[in-house]
Parts: sequence; C-alpha cells; structure tokens
Amino acid sequence: MGTDRRACLALDEIDELAWVRDEFELPPGLIYLDGNSLGPLPRRVRRRVEQVVTEEWGQGLIRSWNDAEWFDAPMRVGRKMAPLIGAKPHEVVVVDSTSLNLFKVVAAAARLTPGRPVILSETGNFPTDLYIADGVAELYGREVRVVESTAVVDSLDSDVGVVMLTHVDYRTGAYHDIDRVTAAIHDAGALAVWDLAHTAGAMPVDLGAAGADFAVGCGYKYLCGGPGAPSFLYVAERWHDRAAQPITGWHGHARPFEFTRHYEPAAGVERFRIGTPALLSLLAFEAALELFEEVDMADLRAKSMQLTQLFADLVAERLPGSGLELASPADPADRGGQVSFRHPDAYPLVQALIARGVVGDFRAPDIARFGMAPLHLRYVDMWDAVEHLVAVVDGEEWRRPEFSQRGTVT
Amino acid sequence: MGTDRRACLALDEIDELAWVRDEFELPPGLIYLDGNSLGPLPRRVRRRVEQVVTEEWGQGLIRSWNDAEWFDAPMRVGRKMAPLIGAKPHEVVVVDSTSLNLFKVVAAAARLTPGRPVILSETGNFPTDLYIADGVAELYGREVRVVESTAVVDSLDSDVGVVMLTHVDYRTGAYHDIDRVTAAIHDAGALAVWDLAHTAGAMPVDLGAAGADFAVGCGYKYLCGGPGAPSFLYVAERWHDRAAQPITGWHGHARPFEFTRHYEPAAGVERFRIGTPALLSLLAFEAALELFEEVDMADLRAKSMQLTQLFADLVAERLPGSGLELASPADPADRGGQVSFRHPDAYPLVQALIARGVVGDFRAPDIARFGMAPLHLRYVDMWDAVEHLVAVVDGEEWRRPEFSQRGTVT
Repeated sequence: MGTDRRACLALDEIDELAWVRDEFELPPGLIYLDGNSLGPLPRRVRRRVEQVVTEEWGQGLIRSWNDAEWFDAPMRVGRKMAPLIGAKPHEVVVVDSTSLNLFKVVAAAARLTPGRPVILSETGNFPTDLYIADGVAELYGREVRVVESTAVVDSLDSDVGVVMLTHVDYRTGAYHDIDRVTAAIHDAGALAVWDLAHTAGAMPVDLGAAGADFAVGCGYKYLCGGPGAPSFLYVAERWHDRAAQPITGWHGHARPFEFTRHYEPAAGVERFRIGTPALLSLLAFEAALELFEEVDMADLRAKSMQLTQLFADLVAERLPGSGLELASPADPADRGGQVSFRHPDAYPLVQALIARGVVGDFRAPDIARFGMAPLHLRYVDMWDAVEHLVAVVDGEEWRRPEFSQRGTVT
Repeated sequence: MGTDRRACLALDEIDELAWVRDEFELPPGLIYLDGNSLGPLPRRVRRRVEQVVTEEWGQGLIRSWNDAEWFDAPMRVGRKMAPLIGAKPHEVVVVDSTSLNLFKVVAAAARLTPGRPVILSETGNFPTDLYIADGVAELYGREVRVVESTAVVDSLDSDVGVVMLTHVDYRTGAYHDIDRVTAAIHDAGALAVWDLAHTAGAMPVDLGAAGADFAVGCGYKYLCGGPGAPSFLYVAERWHDRAAQPITGWHGHARPFEFTRHYEPAAGVERFRIGTPALLSLLAFEAALELFEEVDMADLRAKSMQLTQLFADLVAERLPGSGLELASPADPADRGGQVSFRHPDAYPLVQALIARGVVGDFRAPDIARFGMAPLHLRYVDMWDAVEHLVAVVDGEEWRRPEFSQRGTVT
C-alpha cells in the first residue's frame, strides 16, 4: 500500500489521542508492544502512589480508613471500572487477583445451577481459567468439559450449568460475539461467566446489553493499573440477592465492624470481597482508571484497529516469504487490541526484537504477539517496529544462541 | 513507683532500640499507639515503593518479571518472614489477604483430617476467622465448634480434626501457650492452625519448636508492611507433600509457564499461591521486613514489655478511681505488644484521646486498646500519652457529643 515513515508521522499529527502518550512515563527509545501483559506507568499513578504512601499511610495512618475512605475503595474503584465494561456502578468490585475472582464467580455460578453437572469451557482458554474451573468442579461435584471455541454453542445441553469463556483469545486476539453466545447460553438454561482479561481497556464491551451473568478481568494489562493490580469482578444485578461465594471473610460481611459471631453477606457485589485489600496496588489502579475517564472508548478502539492493521500490512508488504503468518483474524474489527503471527521460531524472534528495544511477547507454541495499546503508541512506532523486525528476519538475528534461552513469560 | 517525665527521658537515653525511630516517617507531634492495627511508614519502604514504581514498572515494564525477579517475590518475601516466626525459609509464602490465607490453610487442614467433623475455635477469636471457618465447614461438610479460649484443650475429642486459634487475643493481648496447646491438639489427633496477626513483629514465636501445622498472619500491623500488605502463610515442612488448597490458580502450578491443560501443584508452600500478586503492596512489605532483619527480636520484646508496663503503671498510679480497669494480663510477660483497659465509655474516651493526638483504638464492647510497637515508640511517649489520658478523664472530655459518633474501626 506504499506507506512510508512520513505517512505514519502524518497520521500521528492528526491523531486525536496523541496527547495521551504524554500521560505516561516511558523508557526512552523503547517501542513497547506488550501493554496487553503489563500496561505502562501513567504519570498520575506515580504521583498518586507517592501521595498514598506519604500522606495517607505515613501521615494519616489508621485514620485513613475513615478519612481517605479506604474501606470503600474496592467498591469505589468498581464504580470507576463499570463504564468500561457496560456495567452498572454497583455491579463491579475491584479486589484480589483475577484467578481468585474467577474462582469466586464460577463457584457462585455453580451454586446457582445445582442440577447441572457440567462447567463448559474452551480449549484455547488461558490455562489458569481451566485450573480454577477444575478446582471449583472438585469442590462442588461438577465436571469441566472443554471444547474448541467455535464449538461452544453447539456443545450446550441440559447438563451444562456454567459456561466460562474468555472474550478475547490471549494468543490470537479473536473474540467471541458476546451477545450471541450469551443468548445461546441462556437459551440452554446455563449461566455465562466471561473473562475480560484482554478486553477491558482495549475495546468496548457491554456486559449489560449482552446479559452476561458474571465477569472478571485484569487491572494490570490494557488498564495500566500496575504490576499485580487487583482484578475487577462483575455480578449482574439480577443475581445480587442470590449469588454467593464460599470465602466468607469480614470485608464481605453486611456489617463488618459490628463483629457479630455469624457471617451475613453484604448486599450485592460487595459480598465478593474477602479481606483487607492491597491498598497500594488498588489505589494505583484507581488513578489509572481516571485516565480512562478522559478518553472516549470509541476513539481508542478506532486507533487500536488502525494500529494493528498498519502493523499487519507493513509485515505483509515488507516481509513476504519470512515465514510470519498472521495468526489473528484478518479484519481488525474481528480482533482485540493485538495482532499475532505464527512463526516456527517465534520465541527467539521475539527475543531478538526485545534486544533491539521492541518489546512484544511469545505465546506457546509458535506465536509472536504484539499488543497495540493505543494510549501510548504512535503510528510511527508501527513503522519503526517493523523496521526492526525486517532487520531481525533479514539478518537472521534470531538464530543467535542467546535468544533461545527461556525465561519467565507472563 | 514515682516515675516522672525525666525518668522516662532517661530510659530513652539508654534505649538500644532508640535509633530505629528515625527509620520511620511519623506525623509530627502524634503519639501513635495503634501500630497493632496499621504500622507506621518505614522510610526505606517509601524509597522502595518509589523505586518499584518508577524503575521496575516504569522503566523495566514486563521485563521486570525476570530482571527484578517479580515471579519469585512471594517466596522470597516468605524467606525473609520465616525467621520472625520460627519457620524454615521454604515454609512461608507471602501473598493474598489474611482471611484468604486462613481459608486456604483451614481447608488444607480439613482435607487432611477427613474422618473428623469438627473445626474447633474460640469465642474470642477475631470475627473473620470464625466466618472463614464457617465457610470451610460448609464446603467440606464440617461443623465449627466454638468454646472459651481457656476451654480449648479440654474440648479436644476424637471428633476434632482442626483447631484454629489466634495466638494473641486482639482485645486483651493475652496469649496461648503455643507449645502446650499445640502438643495437646496433636495428642488428640488434630491439626493446629495458628493466626499470628497480633504476634508477628510484636513478640518472638517459634512455630517449628511448637510443632504448629499451619499458620497465617498480617503484614500491615506490627510488621509495618503498609495498608493491606499481603499476609504470610506457613505450612510445616512435614505437610508439604500432602497439604493442598482448593483455589488452583496458575501461580501455584508446578510449571506455570508451560501452560499445560491440567493443574499440578507446585512443591511445598508455593502451591498456596493463586494468581498474580499485588506487587506494589508485596514489595513494600519486603522492604519493611528488611528493617526487622536489623533488630533483635529479644530486644524488641524486652522494650515492648517495658512500654506496656510503664503505661499500665502510670495509669494505675495517676488515674485511680477513673473506671479504667486493666483488661490485659497483669504481668507483661503474659501479654503481647499491647495493653488494654475496660471502661464503660471506652469508645468516646479513645476518640477524645485521638483528638489530642494520642491514637489508640476501641474494641467492642468496652475496650480501649493501646499498641506499644517498640520500634517507633519512646518511653516518654508513655508519659505524655498518660498525661493526655489524665486530662481527658479529669476534664471529662470524653463526654463531648462529637466523640460518641461511630465511624469505621479496623
């Protein structure tokens, strides 16, 4: 299509989201295409953490539970999260890890569907989702059935009580039609649990319109809440009276400070709290969400699609015969915020790119994944990243032995 | 005993732990007697959080999972925690909240004692402990039996599988003889789960010598790990092969990055991890533990006992007939790091003290609690706090209506 670097710079000139890049602290010279694993640091989060540590903790001490409204923080951050996923403000709480929140909601869904022994999921799901489902199944005498993503709807039968799916596939970026699939799940008499780990902050989603029953997702990916930021947990209002999870800690109690002998669940989604939240991590995430309040999700999604398409086009144009095969859906409207390629040597290839300052990531067995978080990325970054990719491929840099050594991948 | 303010200042002069106060950032003029609820901010923690945010997150980004060894952090912090509770380095992990960790270990203990239907605990336990036990009991078909603390040993019978106790009573500071009680629990064929929330960092405890099976505790109290700091979880080495908890997330997997279909628990205590840890909170706590590495726990305990005794003596001497009755054991060697008093108007009394810059806390129904964390407190603080208490009592300041209004208590 004849794009060159100047054309990319011109796109940045007219980009209405260009200002947001300055909201982040970014390492000089790095092209960071892994905001889908760990989002970069918003400047306001740095400032907010400093304030929480020195003022709220250091000076306020125990009084900050009241004065800084720490106790309400999981619900308050939930209210800020809600618009990003099409939830009502009181349908979301932000606390604990994604795996744990998934445990809570799958357990709650299993308890709501007692006569139906099957928890249905998909082979391509992120492994921890399936491990967690196995754990819930063991506790409640259920069985986990796993089918291809495309076969989920056809596998629904009267044995299925809970369907647990990840909206956007973490490897390819393909995503489920959440409206259609949720409707099919409900038609079959089951409940729908959605994992929005690779959705929230990357593309709009409307849990309310879809009629989703439960959902969870990550704070530390596209949402830029910081390493290990707490997770969000959604329970549709219609289940607020009946949904319950088994880890009955005091922060989920209706009157936690009355110190009554017996547990009485709080109203609504607050009963999905357990213990004292990790406040430094939680309040960091809150500050990151305030950045999202200033951005229109439709603009964000439009730029995200343009970025993934620009990158894919440049790879196709400049690297024919490289062995890089698009692993994501071809139409940017059919994928989330990432674009992925298969390559037999995807692992060392990604490592060679990282050595050049272009950070993407590898997903087994053969996927090189590039997350195009549009708040900090420029169009020219797509051009420059592909320049490096061309150099890596043409120079066969990925064949260097140091790039084959495996480390932790997250 | 004729102590005056000069005598207290003289004690500070010869205090070998006096240097540690400068390790904290403290609000000027405040006498903070609530380090047993939320420990004050160590200067090194402030610096460390700044470094984690700006360097490890901001500059290192996803690479910090390897380069800054984030993945190992829960086990690494566990190794630093271990000496404070008499554990071996590989017997402790630091992650998640105290309530959640209690759920994991009580569930693990219940699974190890299948023929024994009773989880035994004590009436004076912190409420969330009992709520959590109720939740575990419901899941595993057990029943929770609650008796007075002093009746625990006599209540052991062949139905009891798990005994869940809090070492130091959060209201009075009285503590169990952990060696004797654990031995009695084992003699009865049950397992001992200890909550060390008000023990760790306040007094030495030796879980290994006691033969404890499981334990948990808080990072945000005496250990100064920050608001909502993650909790520590201990599993005795002899259970490492057999103990398992039901929330089977990927961070507890033997090979989390191989993305296998089925869960396989990691070796030892690491299987008590679930998902991505809240790293800002976790690494803050790690820095706080490094302060404890520089302090001898015997010195800390000695000063702690002197502080509680000095305070209690001054109250007895200067406030006869005030209605303040010692609620803690009379011998400082028989109580933890706090000293508590009963008073029919304990709530407004504590509020009136707070208004004067002396922060203790109230515990229902009638307890005024003063935590004497000896790392930041001086002997003269005991004198000055009692001066304020005398003024509050003599001036009947606590009768002012604004001090009766209830807020959140933590």
